[in-house]
Amino acid sequence: MKKLILTTLLVFGFLATGAGQKKIVRLPDLPGYVTLKCDLHIHTVFSDGDVWPDVRVDEAIRDGLDAIAITDHIEYTPKKDYIKTDYNAAYNICRDYAAEKNLILIHGAEITRDMPPGHFNALFIEDASPLVRDSAYDAIAEAVKQGAFIQWNHPGWKAQEPDGIPKLYNIHLRLLNNGWINGIEFFNESEYYPLVLTFCQKYNLAVTGNSDIHGLISEFYTAPAYSNRPMTLVFAKERTLQALKEALFAGRTLVYFRDIIAGREDLALPFFQGCIRVSKPYMVTDKSIFFEITNNSDIPFQLVNGPVNAPPEIHLAPNSVTRVVVDRKFSGALLYDVKNIITGENKVLKAELRF
Amino acid sequence: MKKLILTTLLVFGFLATGAGQKKIVRLPDLPGYVTLKCDLHIHTVFSDGDVWPDVRVDEAIRDGLDAIAITDHIEYTPKKDYIKTDYNAAYNICRDYAAEKNLILIHGAEITRDMPPGHFNALFIEDASPLVRDSAYDAIAEAVKQGAFIQWNHPGWKAQEPDGIPKLYNIHLRLLNNGWINGIEFFNESEYYPLVLTFCQKYNLAVTGNSDIHGLISEFYTAPAYSNRPMTLVFAKERTLQALKEALFAGRTLVYFRDIIAGREDLALPFFQGCIRVSKPYMVTDKSIFFEITNNSDIPFQLVNGPVNAPPEIHLAPNSVTRVVVDRKFSGALLYDVKNIITGENKVLKAELRF
Amino acid sequence: MKKLILTTLLVFGFLATGAGQKKIVRLPDLPGYVTLKCDLHIHTVFSDGDVWPDVRVDEAIRDGLDAIAITDHIEYTPKKDYIKTDYNAAYNICRDYAAEKNLILIHGAEITRDMPPGHFNALFIEDASPLVRDSAYDAIAEAVKQGAFIQWNHPGWKAQEPDGIPKLYNIHLRLLNNGWINGIEFFNESEYYPLVLTFCQKYNLAVTGNSDIHGLISEFYTAPAYSNRPMTLVFAKERTLQALKEALFAGRTLVYFRDIIAGREDLALPFFQGCIRVSKPYMVTDKSIFFEITNNSDIPFQLVNGPVNAPPEIHLAPNSVTRVVVDRKFSGALLYDVKNIITGENKVLKAELRF
Amino acid sequence: MKKLILTTLLVFGFLATGAGQKKIVRLPDLPGYVTLKCDLHIHTVFSDGDVWPDVRVDEAIRDGLDAIAITDHIEYTPKKDYIKTDYNAAYNICRDYAAEKNLILIHGAEITRDMPPGHFNALFIEDASPLVRDSAYDAIAEAVKQGAFIQWNHPGWKAQEPDGIPKLYNIHLRLLNNGWINGIEFFNESEYYPLVLTFCQKYNLAVTGNSDIHGLISEFYTAPAYSNRPMTLVFAKERTLQALKEALFAGRTLVYFRDIIAGREDLALPFFQGCIRVSKPYMVTDKSIFFEITNNSDIPFQLVNGPVNAPPEIHLAPNSVTRVVVDRKFSGALLYDVKNIITGENKVLKAELRF
Repeated sequence: MKKLILTTLLVFGFLATGAGQKKIVRLPDLPGYVTLKCDLHIHTVFSDGDVWPDVRVDEAIRDGLDAIAITDHIEYTPKKDYIKTDYNAAYNICRDYAAEKNLILIHGAEITRDMPPGHFNALFIEDASPLVRDSAYDAIAEAVKQGAFIQWNHPGWKAQEPDGIPKLYNIHLRLLNNGWINGIEFFNESEYYPLVLTFCQKYNLAVTGNSDIHGLISEFYTAPAYSNRPMTLVFAKERTLQALKEALFAGRTLVYFRDIIAGREDLALPFFQGCIRVSKPYMVTDKSIFFEITNNSDIPFQLVNGPVNAPPEIHLAPNSVTRVVVDRKFSGALLYDVKNIITGENKVLKAELRF
Repeated sequence: MKKLILTTLLVFGFLATGAGQKKIVRLPDLPGYVTLKCDLHIHTVFSDGDVWPDVRVDEAIRDGLDAIAITDHIEYTPKKDYIKTDYNAAYNICRDYAAEKNLILIHGAEITRDMPPGHFNALFIEDASPLVRDSAYDAIAEAVKQGAFIQWNHPGWKAQEPDGIPKLYNIHLRLLNNGWINGIEFFNESEYYPLVLTFCQKYNLAVTGNSDIHGLISEFYTAPAYSNRPMTLVFAKERTLQALKEALFAGRTLVYFRDIIAGREDLALPFFQGCIRVSKPYMVTDKSIFFEITNNSDIPFQLVNGPVNAPPEIHLAPNSVTRVVVDRKFSGALLYDVKNIITGENKVLKAELRF
Repeated sequence: MKKLILTTLLVFGFLATGAGQKKIVRLPDLPGYVTLKCDLHIHTVFSDGDVWPDVRVDEAIRDGLDAIAITDHIEYTPKKDYIKTDYNAAYNICRDYAAEKNLILIHGAEITRDMPPGHFNALFIEDASPLVRDSAYDAIAEAVKQGAFIQWNHPGWKAQEPDGIPKLYNIHLRLLNNGWINGIEFFNESEYYPLVLTFCQKYNLAVTGNSDIHGLISEFYTAPAYSNRPMTLVFAKERTLQALKEALFAGRTLVYFRDIIAGREDLALPFFQGCIRVSKPYMVTDKSIFFEITNNSDIPFQLVNGPVNAPPEIHLAPNSVTRVVVDRKFSGALLYDVKNIITGENKVLKAELRF
Repeated sequence: MKKLILTTLLVFGFLATGAGQKKIVRLPDLPGYVTLKCDLHIHTVFSDGDVWPDVRVDEAIRDGLDAIAITDHIEYTPKKDYIKTDYNAAYNICRDYAAEKNLILIHGAEITRDMPPGHFNALFIEDASPLVRDSAYDAIAEAVKQGAFIQWNHPGWKAQEPDGIPKLYNIHLRLLNNGWINGIEFFNESEYYPLVLTFCQKYNLAVTGNSDIHGLISEFYTAPAYSNRPMTLVFAKERTLQALKEALFAGRTLVYFRDIIAGREDLALPFFQGCIRVSKPYMVTDKSIFFEITNNSDIPFQLVNGPVNAPPEIHLAPNSVTRVVVDRKFSGALLYDVKNIITGENKVLKAELRF
């Protein structure tokens, strides 16, 4: 009798390590929108990456992403002695594989130039070959002709901007004026560029955050240094390539990396509210009111600058319930700065807890 | 500019390790009921346990429990040379502490006798002192007088039943006849007793699963051997001590440990259905239909004995999405045995996936 | 004052995750020999693997290996529409990279045929191109002409031997007779073939254990299912390619995977003795003698079938000290079977503990 | 045939998690001395700790310690309504248990006063009861009479020194003058007091680092925040209580916590040299010399301020081999600051690498 179940148990030891399954990344949808977790900047052996394109699909599935763009360099193909130059090969190779896995695959390419203007991803293209052009401007023009979303990549990359600060050169202003820059990376690999939030606000662009991975996701983004790979969170009307594209052009994005959310306040606020739930008080004494905050997301939130008669700081660990005690004398709004939701170059989200 | 955010990031390194927070255990509620995660068998230094009672509250909060019973032995107090004998002390010491932490604390005691009848927990008592009686029968009678829920502990414990198989002695039948046994442990510490399911069905008892912890939860229940401490899942009308008691007497429980759920089929089926969600097909080809199963719970499920034209086995990793491919020729019900949901001594749950 | 050190500490948070460093794999050398940890069966994008050859070097360094062989298939190059066929390319690409990292790189190729004779690795070759031959026999002959060590790969692979049991066909006997099979895989990927030990003893061959990796080592060999990738342990006179080759031809190998060591008893015994150290008694009472066994290796050992008046089983956790208590009445040799050191098809190592 | 081994493997899944075994903490001995890993400040339920004394022995064994002192407060016994006051009980309870486990147990007590003079551990006492005295001075005098080693605990504890900076009051100078302070804590719980190094040098005292644990070691010192509990490393002539006491009075100690070693340079230098081994060059090119540094210890070392023609920084991950490349033009001594070995209030160890 016991034997029967013992077998069950032993077999189960190996069950949890199921391969090929998609992790649930606990991030909320926004009212009216589904949150698509995306990595819009990825390399393979078809430029200077280390892996065959299929690996990028497997990584994305494992990490719970909804969409990736494979964006090999147009102008940099160091493996060309061994791999024939075909700017559409990586996309073609894994298109069906991605479809079978229910991953949205974006056809992309990276226009790779010295600064200015630097590197640009052309996303949602039809054919990468015509992007081989002498001038960056012409290459971008060709991508735009194909309906591409143009993302300015790592604008403060120290290899191109030694002080790490993104700068708008004349060509950038010209591209912006044409509507030919549609998004900018705030997070790239392990870096971040605060000034990007100012650019996005001023020019009405989508903020993005991507891995720009060349090696292996699982070996680069390891705990405890990183709790996840960078993600562009896109708030789309539905989970389709078209809806994703519409949302990107509309700038409905936030970025998520290093336990930080960054982007527009009008998106960050409902996003934060979707992550947490404040309970009714479960105990009231002469001196104190006790309630709970449930953080149903994978993101730890750090609330600071609390009001009088309330805790100055509250740490909301991910996937956890935190007890909060305020003084009976407390009145007014329970307002906090959410230290790790960045809504501007020098600004963090202010959020009210209603219990 | 970059400095500002760098500070943010470094501070955050230490944030995730927030102490005192309650982990969200991902298990579904049932329609009309809230699922209370309980450990109904716990010791402290007031009998032969290793820790002060408050530690049991901290452990329970950390592990995401809703309720615990502290059930020190009445008849076994090996530390009495150092600790004064007071059968209510452990409960009294941590009552307020539990209340502040929003943990339901059950006043309990363990009536500790040779087999037969063995060990019994008296739960929801008012005063443990009158349980000091010469005969086990009288001690249980006294507990019943106080309105206690009587749980038969580890009925197949090898120290008392060398073959590991629970047996109903005359005294058990007499107690059952009186309605003085209300639940039995299927899981205790690291053991399990399949026959308990038969007893529970025959006598209409609540199945329970508890740690019987004497040492430290965090050191005994460690991965990979154990993914959680044993839990009695109680389906209560609300999250209160009274509702918990009502549900226990009504037998609305399942047990959860070692990646196994055990208990009544009428509870196990909606519980399983609450854990998983089957998507509409996301792709249909000439040959195959593709859909996804989301397992939103912490429990890995192993589906076996699948029908013709469908996968013979499906492993649903916890907190993950699994892709399933069935043949276009598939018709009928997509019925599986859920190998790790045990509904009888030799029976597992049968469940249909509707996509 | 405190500030100075605080800075030190914060910086250190990121230190431990040093990239590019080589893990110390704790396995002993044998008297007169250095233990080289090797993976003699590895694929890249140049046949049906997923990664660029350099990745294999990085993986090997991280995992603490001393040597790897890159052994792409001669007869199976499914990426040939994109990657030009060059059987030496993978070796040439990472030769200098491996040298810089102090990794011994073996030039290899896999002769890939239906069973019989199945798959064979030619190791220490000079040029893989001449191995393109119609008959397997001729391909192996060519490899032998180049001085190659010939390893029979996964002889019980179910795709080729449906019952999982390796079989010696006529061609194998012919190859053996020529001295053209020099080693056989006991471990391959996640499989093992006990009968290989019998073949190795009968024909005086080196036992080997390898990953045959196509995807990513770090994603395939994950805890808790696997504590390490498979390794061929080669007992060489020094840490050079030549000494490694000499040792392989001399059959001085053990294999290590799934917490199991397998191979010749005359190597397994000193290997085990090199892993553990038995202390003098630290306490003697009227009834008992207490001593410690230090297991200085990464391998957990399970000692079973102990003698009278001593523990029937002793578990020696890796990198740990275990206390052992024997009865004062104990006399004779403290002999145990080491359950996880396999020296024959149905035989485990017997070892004496001298305290 | 395969079956036999399959059983072996499955059983092994549970083997690695052996309970009660002592972890090997990889720290070197010094020439002529054995390194004893000690925690000289520990509480139990007999003062304001949470656990029964035996738990402290189990924790110490698991963590690889050689010695602990149980040092319950003399003047603070908040559980006295339940636990009878007996200042020697904790020591008496676990003396035999520690002996069986081969752990050195030091009889201690904490003299617990307001600042000045603050808290003092009396270690190696014979009877704690006579330490109940009105004045701190008299209590310490009594301990000294018993031959105690007197440790000044957490001298910069903010509850007693709001600015966190230890101060020598008149009573401290008087005690020092008598030779009645023999050691001071640099690390306590999660804090550190750099000024302690200056005091130790000036007054020739042993530096100590201890947990002062009240709750559970395994729950307080968790990764990634902490890689180990604080330890006082004592360089003793042998592994005995007497040799430990001699070494403490002789001041032969370093402290280890938060990936930092602190203490006397004449001990820190051979300690560091015992941790690492520099190889001969394994490759020399026209431009560069390649060699390896093996860090055989559990401590990550950060070498900074490197010389011309050599890497400015070298990170030596624990239990790892790091490759180092210097320019062929390099000449002179390969001198680095070891940033995380602190030998004075504003001073770190300088160490030469000889390859």
